Amino acid sequence: MPSKALIIVAHGSRKASSNEEVMALGEKVESLLGQRYTYVMTSFLEFATPSLEESMISCVEKGASQIVILPYFLASGNHVTRDIPEVVQKTQALHPQVKMTLKEHIGSASGMVTLISDMAVS
Amino acid sequence: MPSKALIIVAHGSRKASSNEEVMALGEKVESLLGQRYTYVMTSFLEFATPSLEESMISCVEKGASQIVILPYFLASGNHVTRDIPEVVQKTQALHPQVKMTLKEHIGSASGMVTLISDMAVS
Repeated sequence: MPSKALIIVAHGSRKASSNEEVMALGEKVESLLGQRYTYVMTSFLEFATPSLEESMISCVEKGASQIVILPYFLASGNHVTRDIPEVVQKTQALHPQVKMTLKEHIGSASGMVTLISDMAVS
Repeated sequence: MPSKALIIVAHGSRKASSNEEVMALGEKVESLLGQRYTYVMTSFLEFATPSLEESMISCVEKGASQIVILPYFLASGNHVTRDIPEVVQKTQALHPQVKMTLKEHIGSASGMVTLISDMAVS
C-alpha cells in the first residue's frame, strides 16, 4: 500500500517548551489525520531537530510514496519563500520517485481570519 | 458609547510583503468584527511599525475604554511569555482607567489543529 507522509515544518525556538508545543500540535494533527496520512512528523528550521531535510529523508527511508510539507509559519518571509522551497527542491532532486508537495504556509489559510476573530471575542 | 479596540501584534519581518500580509489579515478581521470592536489595529515587535506600545497609546488617545491584545504568534517563545506582557503591563500602569486584556497566542487556539488538518488534505 502506498504510504503518505505529512511534515509540519516550524521555525523552532531556543525555548524547549515552545518546540514541545509544536510537537504536541503535530501529535493532535496525526490523531485527526490517521486515515489520510501514514506518518505525521514535526520538523524545525532552527534551534531544534529534526531538520526538514532529516524528516524528509526519514520519510523516504520508511518508503513513503508521497510527502506533503506544510510550513507552520504565519507570514511569508524568507523562510517560507526561499529556505523551505530550497530544501524541498534539493531533496526532490535526490529522490525523484517520491512525490513531494509543498503547501502554502498556515498564515495563508482561509480559516485564519475566523480563528483570530473567534479568539478576539472569546 | 464606550469603545473597544483590538490590537493584533505580530513579530514583524525585514520583508515588507510579509508585514503587509499581516496588515491585510488585520483588515479582514476588522471587517468581520466591526460590530464588536470600534478599532482593529495591527502592530509589530520588530522590523516594522507601529510598535505594540505605539498602538496601545494610540487606542488610549482615541478614547478606547478597553483594549484587547492578541499575539499573532504560533508558539510560546520569549516574545509571547515575556516581551508582550511587559509592554502591556507597562502601558496598563500608565493608563489604569483603560481595561487591557492580553489574550493567548494564536497558536494555542483550539481550532489550530483543524486549520492545519484542513490545509494538509486540501
